[in-house]
Amino acid sequence: MSDVNAILLLSCPDCKGLVARISDFIFRFDGNIVHADQYTAKAEKLFFMRVEWELNGFALDREEIPVAFAPLAKQYRMKWALHFTDYRPRVAIFVSKHLHCLHDLILRRDMGELAADVAAVISNHEEARDLTEQFGMKYFHFPVTGKNKKQQEKKELALLKELKIDLVVLARYMQILSGSFLKYYPDRIINIHHSFLPAFAGSNPYQQAYDRGVKIIGATGHYVTAQLDEGPIIAQDVVKISHRDAVPDIQRKSKDLERIVLARALRLHLENRILVYGSKTIVFE
Amino acid sequence: MSDVNAILLLSCPDCKGLVARISDFIFRFDGNIVHADQYTAKAEKLFFMRVEWELNGFALDREEIPVAFAPLAKQYRMKWALHFTDYRPRVAIFVSKHLHCLHDLILRRDMGELAADVAAVISNHEEARDLTEQFGMKYFHFPVTGKNKKQQEKKELALLKELKIDLVVLARYMQILSGSFLKYYPDRIINIHHSFLPAFAGSNPYQQAYDRGVKIIGATGHYVTAQLDEGPIIAQDVVKISHRDAVPDIQRKSKDLERIVLARALRLHLENRILVYGSKTIVFE
Amino acid sequence: MSDVNAILLLSCPDCKGLVARISDFIFRFDGNIVHADQYTAKAEKLFFMRVEWELNGFALDREEIPVAFAPLAKQYRMKWALHFTDYRPRVAIFVSKHLHCLHDLILRRDMGELAADVAAVISNHEEARDLTEQFGMKYFHFPVTGKNKKQQEKKELALLKELKIDLVVLARYMQILSGSFLKYYPDRIINIHHSFLPAFAGSNPYQQAYDRGVKIIGATGHYVTAQLDEGPIIAQDVVKISHRDAVPDIQRKSKDLERIVLARALRLHLENRILVYGSKTIVFE
Amino acid sequence: MSDVNAILLLSCPDCKGLVARISDFIFRFDGNIVHADQYTAKAEKLFFMRVEWELNGFALDREEIPVAFAPLAKQYRMKWALHFTDYRPRVAIFVSKHLHCLHDLILRRDMGELAADVAAVISNHEEARDLTEQFGMKYFHFPVTGKNKKQQEKKELALLKELKIDLVVLARYMQILSGSFLKYYPDRIINIHHSFLPAFAGSNPYQQAYDRGVKIIGATGHYVTAQLDEGPIIAQDVVKISHRDAVPDIQRKSKDLERIVLARALRLHLENRILVYGSKTIVFE
Repeated sequence: MSDVNAILLLSCPDCKGLVARISDFIFRFDGNIVHADQYTAKAEKLFFMRVEWELNGFALDREEIPVAFAPLAKQYRMKWALHFTDYRPRVAIFVSKHLHCLHDLILRRDMGELAADVAAVISNHEEARDLTEQFGMKYFHFPVTGKNKKQQEKKELALLKELKIDLVVLARYMQILSGSFLKYYPDRIINIHHSFLPAFAGSNPYQQAYDRGVKIIGATGHYVTAQLDEGPIIAQDVVKISHRDAVPDIQRKSKDLERIVLARALRLHLENRILVYGSKTIVFE
Repeated sequence: MSDVNAILLLSCPDCKGLVARISDFIFRFDGNIVHADQYTAKAEKLFFMRVEWELNGFALDREEIPVAFAPLAKQYRMKWALHFTDYRPRVAIFVSKHLHCLHDLILRRDMGELAADVAAVISNHEEARDLTEQFGMKYFHFPVTGKNKKQQEKKELALLKELKIDLVVLARYMQILSGSFLKYYPDRIINIHHSFLPAFAGSNPYQQAYDRGVKIIGATGHYVTAQLDEGPIIAQDVVKISHRDAVPDIQRKSKDLERIVLARALRLHLENRILVYGSKTIVFE
Repeated sequence: MSDVNAILLLSCPDCKGLVARISDFIFRFDGNIVHADQYTAKAEKLFFMRVEWELNGFALDREEIPVAFAPLAKQYRMKWALHFTDYRPRVAIFVSKHLHCLHDLILRRDMGELAADVAAVISNHEEARDLTEQFGMKYFHFPVTGKNKKQQEKKELALLKELKIDLVVLARYMQILSGSFLKYYPDRIINIHHSFLPAFAGSNPYQQAYDRGVKIIGATGHYVTAQLDEGPIIAQDVVKISHRDAVPDIQRKSKDLERIVLARALRLHLENRILVYGSKTIVFE
Repeated sequence: MSDVNAILLLSCPDCKGLVARISDFIFRFDGNIVHADQYTAKAEKLFFMRVEWELNGFALDREEIPVAFAPLAKQYRMKWALHFTDYRPRVAIFVSKHLHCLHDLILRRDMGELAADVAAVISNHEEARDLTEQFGMKYFHFPVTGKNKKQQEKKELALLKELKIDLVVLARYMQILSGSFLKYYPDRIINIHHSFLPAFAGSNPYQQAYDRGVKIIGATGHYVTAQLDEGPIIAQDVVKISHRDAVPDIQRKSKDLERIVLARALRLHLENRILVYGSKTIVFE
């Protein structure tokens, strides 16, 4: 237990004394803060905070913390969540035929970089099965047609529930998830879009970028909402291209971006550094 | 004359032997090629080339070159243009109230970085007059209203003609030029747009970027066409932002980008490195 | 007074309760924190913090704040400094013959981006006089030879004292300041070095970069210490080059970098976002 | 054969007519040039060229090309090499305990991005065996001690010869290869160094970067020469860090860089885009 930290993520209407009250709460029970960051959205008069402290030496047990904190949270009308750094979230990776993001996540898992357990790889195709099983992960095939989509989503949801999935990662999954699926995982489905959103939303952004003649392409990691490609953006990055880059070159360059941006978005989520706020994110790095 | 080079920019239907025929033309008259670059657009079967050679030791006078080259150009149905590196293009800078791009161009002019003469600064406002005149350049004020726009554009065109302007630079000029203006300067009007096009075209891209919650903003230097913000892109660059960046911060960061991207686009044009091709550019760097 | 904030920058041995005690101090006197950031250097067990709050509504007058805070500071053995956002530091810019950084700072001053007063431009040459005086700033010429260097530094120090200079900016000043000069402005002299330090320290980094054949060049803004080019780094940035870039191209590209990096380092200092710690900086952005 | 191209890489003393003579050679035998790029090193009066043309329709067979080109090459004292795009170079990857670069190359091989055959993975440790064999490649273990190093290098050389290896890739191989090894693969051993060379050459660049307090870290792909970390640089890239990044964070960020930079350097080599010139490279992208 010695190295475990508690992380409190919260938002509430802005008022004086919030930092003082929250840090005092931790101090009162002998907690040592190792990271504290806050942000005030002036226009909306909203306060956001992330505070992380050591459980080692803290006077409260894990289960006691929410009980002790609840009165303060209520007083200031906070939305809040409490996390512990030794909890390994259970992740389901959705993928279709392009395997570079999946493969990259496997590489990071092998290097111990992924602070999560990959409980399932789910696909509407079979391309990713060998790779998945080779690395000892479970593969689930849900072929999707226009007709069976609703049914398949239900089965997928049942599976996610059974596997106690905390987070869904769309690692180049080429199906659009319906609103009735999304509502079960608000701010807990991360997608990688292969363009610099909002430019080139929708299908085939490589071709769109080529046709427009841009000199830079990008990739975007974001939470998925019912508005396709309009969810809160977590991370973006870009790379330069020139007139010499045909669509396959753009694809090759983009794939490196997609891997890195998805991994960054995922890490920020797993480290509980993100607060969603309207259609935007606050990322406490 | 010893240091002057000739630059040939050309495009034509692709066929075998083009590089050989063109380089042989220069070799036959004892020219020393210092830079040659070519590109073939496969789908459209079009060939593009930029070749630069020393006039020093070249057997043809400047006036003789076009005459001697014409038969070859005709045979291969080339569109072509011949430039000399000692010609200083005459530039008119259009500006409104934001002066950072104008000021930056002045800085570069002072450092000897701008291979052009600024023959006029033209504005629909008076904000830039002092700065312009302080550095010894001519200032022309053409206030624009909904009613007088057509007339003012005519006067501006007359002035550009009188001043023998080669290139128009829109250094944050907040008026939309009409098609009847643009047709006189095809591929010779460069605009800086303060977003990463095609994202956030139109007005107030800073606010648009803030509202969307992007994590990177950009700037785009492009030729102006009748389709606003859709002209061929010459140069783009980006900078990271975070949730902490309010609209004024985005503006501050963007202004640095705009200066650098406009200067880069302008330099590429002045060095005759750009061929326009449909709605895209080929940039021979 | 309504928009003025107080900023407290502090460091001390790490212990529990620091965030709580400091934020409570502000809360007790009815202060509204608008920005708080802290960092703990684990190995050295040192705590660093920047906290900014509104004076509007704060129960203490400016002069009362240090008095009220002193006991807390003493208890925790803090090094600390208090700043107010309406104070405009008085800056002296040192420059030699390359004027791009000076000119860039003038541009930013004109745009209202520079939260400081340029009280003097000081040079060992005359190249910058016209530009300086043209923009209404005072120019002081201290020619430096091997022999008179010590004397000239004394005169410069006397001038800086007379002008109540808070911060010295070396905007491509090509003289090395002696240790006896530096000791009067610890962590208050910012230099721009035209390389990506520690690579290419010393003279002519453009040529060094060319000779080594690097594919990226950089610029570094840092505090000046007695060890040349080894002071704490505040900001760095880079740009790509290729084999085509000869030394003048490297210089041209670098100059854009130098302007931006120096401006960034200066802004971070002026906004009181930097704490120096050994040979390193903590930058609370 | 229809899609195969020939690539000629050459250098020689600069003189007039080189582009014309070389392109005429290709035209004379009915070749269609798809890419031509040249560069002249002014100071050294050296000419460098890369020209690529379609074998389809070319009048000479592969074997005839060198014979036909030799007289021209001799006349102009060219160093030259002829490559064909359907040849898959045979690569040996050397690795020690850090597997991210190896794993990344495997990923690219699986995606069809690697235009080469990995004929061997060679290591002084056993860490990479499982991964290597899992993906159907051959693993060779040569443990190295101070005493047996010379002998092991001999065995490695014998193996490379037996396997007809064209290119050696040091994918985080932590042994220094002796000069007697290196001489067999001039400009054919690519190393990835985990710093922005020439900064932080030698061992533990992560720690060096942390200690110096730089704000940006980098990675460098270069050819290996007898002067450690001083070989010709092929590719570099960088990523920002802050005071919050401890050595493990620097390592994590750097690993992404190393993968991308090594893959880029390798691709440039495999596409025959690099000419080495003194301690520098010319990269025809």
